[in-house]
Amino acid sequence: MSNEYIETEISGLLLFERKVIADERGAVMHMLKSSSRAFDNDFGEVYFSRVTRGVIKGWKKHLEMRQRFVVPVGEVQFVFFDDRVHSESRGRLVELKLSPEFYRLVIVPNGVWYSFKGSGTPDSLVVNCASLEHDPLEVVTLPLGTDVIPYKWLD
Amino acid sequence: MSNEYIETEISGLLLFERKVIADERGAVMHMLKSSSRAFDNDFGEVYFSRVTRGVIKGWKKHLEMRQRFVVPVGEVQFVFFDDRVHSESRGRLVELKLSPEFYRLVIVPNGVWYSFKGSGTPDSLVVNCASLEHDPLEVVTLPLGTDVIPYKWLD
Repeated sequence: MSNEYIETEISGLLLFERKVIADERGAVMHMLKSSSRAFDNDFGEVYFSRVTRGVIKGWKKHLEMRQRFVVPVGEVQFVFFDDRVHSESRGRLVELKLSPEFYRLVIVPNGVWYSFKGSGTPDSLVVNCASLEHDPLEVVTLPLGTDVIPYKWLD
Repeated sequence: MSNEYIETEISGLLLFERKVIADERGAVMHMLKSSSRAFDNDFGEVYFSRVTRGVIKGWKKHLEMRQRFVVPVGEVQFVFFDDRVHSESRGRLVELKLSPEFYRLVIVPNGVWYSFKGSGTPDSLVVNCASLEHDPLEVVTLPLGTDVIPYKWLD
């Protein structure tokens, strides 16, 4: 059950349903179990990215790292763009809004561009359980105004 | 550096400093890298516990699971109690207040009782990167008013 996922328009960009166990004292929210297909025996690092409301981070892509994002606090709008040369979904864009209300684990394959904007008040939390430890040599960035990616954030 | 820890009054209950990389757009906060001594090649599950302000959760202890807690949002007061028969620190109590301002990874060895109270507004987030997947058979609980643990929460 917890290992089921749905595919998106971008090949390898997958959404896994995750349990939120409601409790008036504060919910318990699952992210990743070692037995899940989302884990795949591939643990590099867990870290958090707080996102101030209205702030946009990106564009970034990782050459090697696979990322696993959830948003347990606030609300974050993600945009993904596939320009991988050998990808079936080359040229495709996917938009996703994650929050505790739409609580999903997103797997981002290496080579896919991403950017995100915080829309929670006062801020939001992105948790990433990445397949590799941070290594600046495998990260590529582009400015938000780039022409390479057919998406413009509105202010 | 990131693998250094300090010991507490309870044997095996360890505090690791963790980086917070300040950024006006929202900080990046480290939790756990696979190369850290805190990881120890031991991944079971990552999950979140939201804690409404004023709520107290506990007492619990895990017979097998080692837990790794951080608090990236809000503020949470923890109390730990050691009644392990063969422990050098048997009978000891440790209190800790974790938050983004006092940002530490706490390792809780199996067999140590714990309870925690949310003091962040409106709620706080505890992240646990546990050594095992959740298994109700290895969890023991006691009511908050128990006489077994020499600690009383004030309302």
